[in-house]
Amino acid sequence: MAKYKVVFQPVGGKVEVEQESRILEAAAESGIYINSLCGGEGVCGKCRVQITRGEAKPTSHSIRFLSREEINSGFVLACQTEVKTNLEVWVPPEARLEEEQILTTESMVCYDAPQDLQVSETFDIPSLLYLPVTKKLYLSLPEPSLSDNIADLDRVYREIRKKIEAPYLETSLSTLRGLAELLRESKWQVTATLHPYDEHCIEILSLEPGDTCAENYGIACDIGTTTIVVQLVDLRSGSILGVEASHNQQAKYGEDVISRMIFACGRGGLSPIHNAVIDSVNTLIDTLLEKHGVAASNVTALTAAGNTTMTHLFMGLEPCTIRLEPYIPTANFLPTGSAEELNLHLHPKAVVACLPGVSSYVGGDITAGVLASGISNSSQISALIDIGTNGEIVIGNNEWLVCCSASAGPAFEGSGTKCGMRATRGAIQKVHIESDQVQYETIGGAKVRGICGSGLIDTIAELFRNRIIDPNGKFPAESAHPRVQKNEDDMEFVLASGDETETGKSVVITESDISNLIKSKGAILAAMRVMLNSVGMSFESLERIFVAGGFGNYLDVEKAIFIGLLPDVSPERVKFIGNSSLTGARMGLLSRHALERANTLARQMTYFELSVDPKFYDEFVAALFLPHTDMDLFPSIKRMMGS
Amino acid sequence: MAKYKVVFQPVGGKVEVEQESRILEAAAESGIYINSLCGGEGVCGKCRVQITRGEAKPTSHSIRFLSREEINSGFVLACQTEVKTNLEVWVPPEARLEEEQILTTESMVCYDAPQDLQVSETFDIPSLLYLPVTKKLYLSLPEPSLSDNIADLDRVYREIRKKIEAPYLETSLSTLRGLAELLRESKWQVTATLHPYDEHCIEILSLEPGDTCAENYGIACDIGTTTIVVQLVDLRSGSILGVEASHNQQAKYGEDVISRMIFACGRGGLSPIHNAVIDSVNTLIDTLLEKHGVAASNVTALTAAGNTTMTHLFMGLEPCTIRLEPYIPTANFLPTGSAEELNLHLHPKAVVACLPGVSSYVGGDITAGVLASGISNSSQISALIDIGTNGEIVIGNNEWLVCCSASAGPAFEGSGTKCGMRATRGAIQKVHIESDQVQYETIGGAKVRGICGSGLIDTIAELFRNRIIDPNGKFPAESAHPRVQKNEDDMEFVLASGDETETGKSVVITESDISNLIKSKGAILAAMRVMLNSVGMSFESLERIFVAGGFGNYLDVEKAIFIGLLPDVSPERVKFIGNSSLTGARMGLLSRHALERANTLARQMTYFELSVDPKFYDEFVAALFLPHTDMDLFPSIKRMMGS
Repeated sequence: MAKYKVVFQPVGGKVEVEQESRILEAAAESGIYINSLCGGEGVCGKCRVQITRGEAKPTSHSIRFLSREEINSGFVLACQTEVKTNLEVWVPPEARLEEEQILTTESMVCYDAPQDLQVSETFDIPSLLYLPVTKKLYLSLPEPSLSDNIADLDRVYREIRKKIEAPYLETSLSTLRGLAELLRESKWQVTATLHPYDEHCIEILSLEPGDTCAENYGIACDIGTTTIVVQLVDLRSGSILGVEASHNQQAKYGEDVISRMIFACGRGGLSPIHNAVIDSVNTLIDTLLEKHGVAASNVTALTAAGNTTMTHLFMGLEPCTIRLEPYIPTANFLPTGSAEELNLHLHPKAVVACLPGVSSYVGGDITAGVLASGISNSSQISALIDIGTNGEIVIGNNEWLVCCSASAGPAFEGSGTKCGMRATRGAIQKVHIESDQVQYETIGGAKVRGICGSGLIDTIAELFRNRIIDPNGKFPAESAHPRVQKNEDDMEFVLASGDETETGKSVVITESDISNLIKSKGAILAAMRVMLNSVGMSFESLERIFVAGGFGNYLDVEKAIFIGLLPDVSPERVKFIGNSSLTGARMGLLSRHALERANTLARQMTYFELSVDPKFYDEFVAALFLPHTDMDLFPSIKRMMGS
Repeated sequence: MAKYKVVFQPVGGKVEVEQESRILEAAAESGIYINSLCGGEGVCGKCRVQITRGEAKPTSHSIRFLSREEINSGFVLACQTEVKTNLEVWVPPEARLEEEQILTTESMVCYDAPQDLQVSETFDIPSLLYLPVTKKLYLSLPEPSLSDNIADLDRVYREIRKKIEAPYLETSLSTLRGLAELLRESKWQVTATLHPYDEHCIEILSLEPGDTCAENYGIACDIGTTTIVVQLVDLRSGSILGVEASHNQQAKYGEDVISRMIFACGRGGLSPIHNAVIDSVNTLIDTLLEKHGVAASNVTALTAAGNTTMTHLFMGLEPCTIRLEPYIPTANFLPTGSAEELNLHLHPKAVVACLPGVSSYVGGDITAGVLASGISNSSQISALIDIGTNGEIVIGNNEWLVCCSASAGPAFEGSGTKCGMRATRGAIQKVHIESDQVQYETIGGAKVRGICGSGLIDTIAELFRNRIIDPNGKFPAESAHPRVQKNEDDMEFVLASGDETETGKSVVITESDISNLIKSKGAILAAMRVMLNSVGMSFESLERIFVAGGFGNYLDVEKAIFIGLLPDVSPERVKFIGNSSLTGARMGLLSRHALERANTLARQMTYFELSVDPKFYDEFVAALFLPHTDMDLFPSIKRMMGS
């Protein structure tokens, strides 16, 4: 097959590709990542690039994303265009995906559980004993003699049984290889790393010379669609030594879960997208280990929590059937793997376990959240709400648990919003509006770059409180507010003018941004109503509401209630638990009992498939107002706005 | 490092090797196998080769194996000589190891259990139910729907549990990969291969499309030091479809167990010697599968029995500590492996299990023999004698079992005997002498090539009965027998003159051959005496004697008793059970309960370490006569010879 050279400008990246390759693939091969929000399906139009030398024409399908001027000056969609001659391609800044942006420590805080949420609070201590996934045991073996000539392995087993109860011990053939030499060269002083994978059976993962018990570490990992967070934990003390976070490198293959699934299920897509998440995790692990002077060989376990698609991709499983009705994952309870099997930068035999999910759209991150929030330990009726692209909701107590996933859309995560961005440096996260005065706070106090989820909620609440928008989320036609302006085909509110922003362009909120957010919050509220109704309860029944997810502590509860994202309960009933996915993963790392409980929880939770529930649609439509069509559901807002 | 070219003649094999390499290694690299009975230790002198171009001098250590003429014409020991220039090496026929000699079917018969020893006879039916190591189950899964949307794996588990009791099911990550596609492409009709590895837990080894239940096969394997025998078994019916045998290709690295250990524990020795046995087994498997039209993917289990060193080498474990006091194996109970881990030509996930051993010198072949003989199922006191280079002996019944290994030397296997050979085509296996007339039978009725173990026993018994040798195994100085002659430094008896043999050289038995055999039989008899004495018993206590090993049915019991290899019991108490190692391996393949019983047996057997038992030496010296110093132990011989 013919091969062609493609040069990407302004960076100058060069690559030689086969005739059928698309420009998007060629760019990725040359190390340049072009924004492809839709996963290369040709439906988002974000990957516009300009052909500056050679020949390539836009497909008829692409034309709707290109203006006449763009077409005349050689623009095409990178994802839709095949390489048929040698090319020089100019990648405009807006099409280029930014370099991996490591989150700063200050913005990372929100990804971890608040300090006051300690393991002790959420663990049911009598039953959830501290018992890490792996444990090291130092063995000083008596040298064999003619009167004590049992096999080497039996000698190791005998010594382990002197120290711990171990009715059934086992090990792999590969651990046995070299054992004879290891024992003799170490003068019979070795350390065994044990993995108690059920009550009866303990596996010897590895044996190494000398006493290395002083160092045994684990990694807890939250695999988010957007962000990956990794914690280094001392398995001896349970203490957290450090945390690192970064964007999920899979983003180069698609912004959201759906586009990642599409990419993964295309020809040859699984392997690169699996490698991308493994690379992301490895980069974070490498950084953490270097910072804390920990050798990879002393990290013997990793637990991961993520949504069902992320878990599948992390473990190298096809997520294809998750996306389409009837929404079937390959497995909710995944077998443990080993670091070497997954190419993770840990001890090759390190145990890799994923927290179990409930269904295609209620994953291990939610099971982890239930574990971390402790809602299943109390008789109080509680709700756990994890707000992201999907809003997963769990309601229940120590006797029953129901759960569902409401497709909230990307509004809370900054996508689907004209000036939206992720919750990183420069994002507006807090907003106060008083008549025509706007006060805002950005993450890191940096110059404005855009607006993140919590800033968006604040803005809409403030616009509504100041009656700049109506309960439908529309700017009244007669609006004379100095910051309201009309753009090409939409009304918009100027939050920050060009001179306040990094890019020099003003940061605005459009009517369609507001409409998107109302749909998102409507979906979440409707889902809660459907589940509560099904168990004969109402919002008042909720004694506690745990809010998890990237919002962390930045979400303003009163404003969230004000727009109808959260039910109208006394704000002190609402508790932020930050990244409960990570907390749950860490609990699983530190206690086999916690992992077992996660399994039990995942089995216990009754899953509601909302997409086939006609009641959900009615509730959803009713919730497409600020705060809700039925103002009796929001008595405090009714009082406030009525006055 | 400098490299030199070595050419081996008359074959013309060429190889380039590094400076330090020895000629023996260079030859192996070029695919030419030079006899190195001692494993390259420079102590057998079998690897004499002639340097015809280039320079290489014999080491001072080698000189004792070379005549002055040989030294003058450039002979060296291949194992002791380093390559220091380019060389041309002539490998004389006697130094060259013969091409892999596939045993003919007629000579193979003796390697399998006689027809009358069926599983039914030796299995304790109530407890040892038929339950193969792997079982296939056809699953016709209901298609998922929104009202039945459990995960793919749960759907598989649910269907399995409809058919069999399976409290705990598990599978590996690699089996899950591709599952979603497999189920859908096969239209939800799949076959699961299950491995019930304990009472509670069943592992799904693999899933494949359609209904393949009609074909599920296993391999039972006897890994002998000399010979490897492989059986193809239909796991559905338990019937044996075929059997193949060949020499163990490891022989090119050393004739006996000790020399193999020495080779394996030298620099880089483990990998080639492990590969050699795997290659041997694979070649036999390939032949069997082709003959019987069985696809490798339908062979899902292999069980192997062998002595402890063979088992270690088969599984890729170092045998180094087995050889030296205090004689420690890495493991007696080996974890199961998979075919892909061991590069065996079976289904990649096929279970590979070794029968457990008791100690370094009582291996899984003996545990298999106990299983196959059924001695542990009866209250009768029985002995199991497996005669090879080591004579392993087990004595006991359903309440107790003692075992030991007596180093018998290679006499029974044809080595250590001037004209000895393995029990293959052309070997004298039966001998009758009447005054100066010798009648013999060869294996396959072929022209004489040498004499094998059973022929040797026959000959010595006949020589003794005809009083051609005395009870010390010596030819009387005054011997006037026409077939007794003196060679350079020994007396010898001519069994076949040059015109009767294939080589044209006469086949003889020398005094030192006889002396070696007397030592061998003395060791076995002494070991039995020591063990019987330790439990307060004598030869008369033995109600049954099972004889296992390559001798098969060719051993003449009365003659074996006559020379004192077997105790003086009524011949009908002696039963040949042929290759009980193979039978035991097959039993383990067909019944998980048999494998479990093998584990129990291996734990129950009390091992006697004879090398440190002073009583053994006394008994050994007393047994160095025909049949024994104490003729009261052999009353029937005493009567016969006294008359």
